[in-house]
Amino acid sequence: MTAATAAVGRRVRIVGTGLIGASLGIALSRVGFQVSLDDPSPTAAALARDLGAGVLAADTDAVPDMVVVAAPPDVAADVVAAELLRWPYAVVTDAASIKGAVLTALQDRGADLSRYVGSHPMAGREKSGAMAAQGDLFEGRSWVVAPGPRASARAIDMVRKIAEAAGSVVLIMTPDEHDAAVAAISHVPQIAASLVASRLRDLPSGAVALSGQGIRDVTRIAASDPGMWTQILAGNAPAILGVLESLAEELDAVLVALRHLESNTDGGSVGARAVLARAVADGNAGQALIPGKHGAAPTAYATVIVVVPDEPGALGRLLRDVGEAGVNMEDLHMEHEIGQMFGLAELAVLPAAVQPLITALRALGWPVHE
Amino acid sequence: MTAATAAVGRRVRIVGTGLIGASLGIALSRVGFQVSLDDPSPTAAALARDLGAGVLAADTDAVPDMVVVAAPPDVAADVVAAELLRWPYAVVTDAASIKGAVLTALQDRGADLSRYVGSHPMAGREKSGAMAAQGDLFEGRSWVVAPGPRASARAIDMVRKIAEAAGSVVLIMTPDEHDAAVAAISHVPQIAASLVASRLRDLPSGAVALSGQGIRDVTRIAASDPGMWTQILAGNAPAILGVLESLAEELDAVLVALRHLESNTDGGSVGARAVLARAVADGNAGQALIPGKHGAAPTAYATVIVVVPDEPGALGRLLRDVGEAGVNMEDLHMEHEIGQMFGLAELAVLPAAVQPLITALRALGWPVHE
Repeated sequence: MTAATAAVGRRVRIVGTGLIGASLGIALSRVGFQVSLDDPSPTAAALARDLGAGVLAADTDAVPDMVVVAAPPDVAADVVAAELLRWPYAVVTDAASIKGAVLTALQDRGADLSRYVGSHPMAGREKSGAMAAQGDLFEGRSWVVAPGPRASARAIDMVRKIAEAAGSVVLIMTPDEHDAAVAAISHVPQIAASLVASRLRDLPSGAVALSGQGIRDVTRIAASDPGMWTQILAGNAPAILGVLESLAEELDAVLVALRHLESNTDGGSVGARAVLARAVADGNAGQALIPGKHGAAPTAYATVIVVVPDEPGALGRLLRDVGEAGVNMEDLHMEHEIGQMFGLAELAVLPAAVQPLITALRALGWPVHE
Repeated sequence: MTAATAAVGRRVRIVGTGLIGASLGIALSRVGFQVSLDDPSPTAAALARDLGAGVLAADTDAVPDMVVVAAPPDVAADVVAAELLRWPYAVVTDAASIKGAVLTALQDRGADLSRYVGSHPMAGREKSGAMAAQGDLFEGRSWVVAPGPRASARAIDMVRKIAEAAGSVVLIMTPDEHDAAVAAISHVPQIAASLVASRLRDLPSGAVALSGQGIRDVTRIAASDPGMWTQILAGNAPAILGVLESLAEELDAVLVALRHLESNTDGGSVGARAVLARAVADGNAGQALIPGKHGAAPTAYATVIVVVPDEPGALGRLLRDVGEAGVNMEDLHMEHEIGQMFGLAELAVLPAAVQPLITALRALGWPVHE
């Protein structure tokens, strides 16, 4: 790449200045890109400008080398198509969380697919809008770059460089691979969490009080926004169906087994029990595939449980003591119980660190359980 | 109650000295109960004795006032029936996580149901066996006492006192109410987590690397033991079916909606989108019912995000600083990202504490995001 093209590649136009667009503008501006901002809402664009995301598109006559469309999934293809027409030499990407549907819609419109490369930054917050923007939103997060078959190598390279400039780790996948992956790791878990949480509406309130950490974990993402998720689920229907139908099939087998056990309480229903055991064992195998911290293979951490009084600074004192013992915590989980004014801190550490840690904490008076 | 009966009520026999039985023995011995221990495995009983759970039943001729059966769910009824026959004046309880099936089995055997009161301490660990026992296992946990219609008031009162002596918060429910509650808050979430985790086996390993906190939370309990869960699911089949069939019905509706959207990509499928939006919104409503810390109604905590370097003691320093700012953290969650050597600590605090906390932490040099 010559110095001239390197300089030219630094003019980035961002269309859609919500959380993702504004955060990207801040991140790219910080490392020297010339960012211009456009949004159907002039207020949203001005807010992003004030946050340091770039200049308003209306205030510049620069021709962009690159356009990033950070619009809601159901309008992403329309906006990408318009940008490809408007800037005949620019590379265009989008940040929608579904990729196949956007590419298909662009094909149907006869768009110039050599200059389009879809992408998906795996970053987000529970808040949305430019007000929630932060320049480090993408730091250390995965960013999938998902070129279609007609994308040029130069276009792929430009999108990759934008993602890397924002601090992300780039993963190249086909659009179908991406959609199948997010169906299994994001969309189907969302549906399952919603359906499980939904059942709690039928319980008396005294019964919901028995909720422990298990149901809390399973249903945490059930608090997500219905409007946004309807767009995502509708947009990725084919890939989600591939995963969800297989889940429904196994659920049916579990239901058949349970019905058999309900009507045969003599304990002789070995086949039905085998179905249940297989379902749980297959779940063990799937769960074990999820990578651990730093993307490493899952490590078998050991857990040390410490009783922490429920008062300001108590957890801080504990963790300072852990640090002074020279032990690096891999994970931390706090659990509080009904009616109880203290919590249990579960510290995950490498197995070799367990005994030194227990010895050090006990010497300082902490009630510790392995 | 006279002094004499109070003294008599303190002789407790524990049958089954695994995690629950041994932990209960330690807890009750500490507060002055005379505990005797029995187990099909003499080694397990001796280990519990050495951990301070009581004396071996073989070494005492004391007649128990109360028997606690802490045996696996599928043998609980047999053991309870035998104990009721052997000790004709004792009150007998069990600690199995299903209650209706045990009561029905005892009815079928013609057992003396005035002296039997089922119960379920909502406590456990990922480890099992007496080696994992701890005297504070029940402290602050819920303990359901689930009397059948023929249980005597005296028997109910004795079981309640045992649970309270171990430090638990007692909830009285009918066996059916208990089973319906654990079906919805424990058994169905377990099945859903297993089925979601199971789907990951079909993904290429590169795709699983995209896993974020959502799938980790939804599938954490999918790591549970298949043998134990087969017993639990089989034992509570009727109540689980009540919840799981309603889930399957809603899943079918979601599948129909997705199939409709797959074959009608014109975006005009308003009815299908409404089904998806309703599923997510109902999940919102169910999730909001789960009580927060200390059994209080769910509180809307605000989240402060702090970038923490990945080095020993860093999190401890942060939390010491939080404590010194006079702020009580309601919850803490650490997130690490692929390939990144630092973590994001999400501190949940009361909304009023957000600004003081941010000001204090920034003054000390912590990178903070609201």
